[in-house]
Amino acid sequence: MDITVAVDAMGGDHGAHVTVPAALRFLRDHPDVNIVLVGLVDAIAAELKAHHAVTHPRLRVHPATEVVTMDESPQSAMKNKKDSSMRVAINLVKSGEANACVSAGNTGALMATARFVLKTIPGIDRPAIASLMPTMKGQTLMLDLGANVDSTPLQIAQFAIMGSAMFGALKHKDAPTVGLLNVGSEEIKGNEVVKAAAELVRQTRLNFVGNVEGNDIYKGTVDVVACDGFTGNITLKASEGVAQMFGTFLKAEFTRNWFTKLLALVAMPVLKSFKNKLDPRRFNGASFLGLRGIVVKSHGGADEVAFYWALAQAVEEARSSLIQRITDQVQHELRHFEAADASEKAASEQSA
Amino acid sequence: MDITVAVDAMGGDHGAHVTVPAALRFLRDHPDVNIVLVGLVDAIAAELKAHHAVTHPRLRVHPATEVVTMDESPQSAMKNKKDSSMRVAINLVKSGEANACVSAGNTGALMATARFVLKTIPGIDRPAIASLMPTMKGQTLMLDLGANVDSTPLQIAQFAIMGSAMFGALKHKDAPTVGLLNVGSEEIKGNEVVKAAAELVRQTRLNFVGNVEGNDIYKGTVDVVACDGFTGNITLKASEGVAQMFGTFLKAEFTRNWFTKLLALVAMPVLKSFKNKLDPRRFNGASFLGLRGIVVKSHGGADEVAFYWALAQAVEEARSSLIQRITDQVQHELRHFEAADASEKAASEQSA
Repeated sequence: MDITVAVDAMGGDHGAHVTVPAALRFLRDHPDVNIVLVGLVDAIAAELKAHHAVTHPRLRVHPATEVVTMDESPQSAMKNKKDSSMRVAINLVKSGEANACVSAGNTGALMATARFVLKTIPGIDRPAIASLMPTMKGQTLMLDLGANVDSTPLQIAQFAIMGSAMFGALKHKDAPTVGLLNVGSEEIKGNEVVKAAAELVRQTRLNFVGNVEGNDIYKGTVDVVACDGFTGNITLKASEGVAQMFGTFLKAEFTRNWFTKLLALVAMPVLKSFKNKLDPRRFNGASFLGLRGIVVKSHGGADEVAFYWALAQAVEEARSSLIQRITDQVQHELRHFEAADASEKAASEQSA
Repeated sequence: MDITVAVDAMGGDHGAHVTVPAALRFLRDHPDVNIVLVGLVDAIAAELKAHHAVTHPRLRVHPATEVVTMDESPQSAMKNKKDSSMRVAINLVKSGEANACVSAGNTGALMATARFVLKTIPGIDRPAIASLMPTMKGQTLMLDLGANVDSTPLQIAQFAIMGSAMFGALKHKDAPTVGLLNVGSEEIKGNEVVKAAAELVRQTRLNFVGNVEGNDIYKGTVDVVACDGFTGNITLKASEGVAQMFGTFLKAEFTRNWFTKLLALVAMPVLKSFKNKLDPRRFNGASFLGLRGIVVKSHGGADEVAFYWALAQAVEEARSSLIQRITDQVQHELRHFEAADASEKAASEQSA
């Protein structure tokens, strides 16, 4: 199946300077993929020219006259930039002209716009941000990584369902194992929200293994780790922080003096292979789940290699009919939650 | 000042087998420290004999006839084991016979017992678990790491105050910088609890820099990172998980074949220096803050080196008059919180 990806060519810290060469390289490696570059026509044309690719049979430029800046508020982006590269790329998914879109732009604006244009899947209250994480055993899908800050038990249960559907679709695995991120000490089995979420997930047909702890993410204990976006975001960033500290210290040791520098030179192939294994660029591309269309968010600071991997993520999702899989699984499990939904709504109306 | 440390000699996965030699080694290195080994007299005597130290001028054995097991519930430990090594060690702090106590035993039981025996400092609702974390710049104190799961804004503000006092005492720094752990995206400035906590901390005289993100912990952006125990515990364990994965992968690369093994041999001094820098044993020893006495929790699986560092942490806290420092600072800031305290109490009574 041919896949068409709409690329917000202007998004991210480096805009077309990164997105255009990444798209060209991706087209070279993937003969069944078409790309629509969305953005300021002149800027894109200049980059294409610089890469000697003024025309390409599977590449099309779609004009958009505005650019959402990295620090712009979602409200401002939504209200004032209806012809932004970000929004037009999402429109192409909505209209069916593209199977997925990728943006390295402002996360908040991208989420708000995607939600407004594409709407959520029936039965899903809030979209979540999901990403595959490297583990000792392979990969684990974690969500929500920060789309929501105050999640209800029902929302966390919805994340678990969407995560299960996504892992199943991407990894061709039936009944992936699902855990809820929690604290481990025996006497306190987690906070009230997670306890209630576990009760709900237990009612589904998910392959639910119960609570997992922070270190279980990287042990690869389960296929899918679901949590509220507050905890997920902090955990993800702390993990990145540890990895960065490790890398910095390792480098410092190997550049301490001429002897260690010589050692580093000899050990280069080993260090390089180690680095590749955990290269964060290979894990670039977080998915906005719960929308009626595929939206992949690249890291804002992504370079060409990292953006390439975000494109790969979008194509893989489109190829695996991710949206249909999630819609079906949510539909299937929905009936378990009707009572919970009603009681949450009643509670929020009461407190309002 | 001479310091006396009460050691729960039976606590942890390895009991006296680890605690006794660690205590002997610690005494050797610290001529102004006395240690009271608390536990089953026979087991301790056997270990002392095995280490050719049947008597020692600064070592005393204090009998306790029971041992709290690692999987015992706090309720059971409190009710059924009033003569446990853990409890008797804490009693020695209460009576003033020891300046601090250290246990590698069951966290929940240790916290419950310590709270029951020692009581909390006036103005502190709940004790917190605090630990120094390695960062790119030095060390950051983080709390709560899991003593509480559903923290109120007022409790988080109390953690910030205690953390500031502890960092100031241990590192001899006036007005350490304090941050609240939060999510970073601009449009959502954190969950409701953290927002309210920030409002409270802003009213204190702490050197409050505002919100910090997960990666800021390891960047060393602030001296003290305060958060609820749920987020703190998960973040800590995820960080340990990443570090473990890094170590495992690095080792795997260096043991892949005869060539890489040879490389590892040559690079050993560099790898060792790197390993030492981030050796988790050096960071063993989490402090229970908010009690009227010093209680340091060692990792249950601690070996002799790790337990040694937990002893060092306890001694340092005793030497810096930590409890007095915290008590003073809490007293000093208390008045800011009277209104918040009253409103939280009213809310919890209403919901009860």
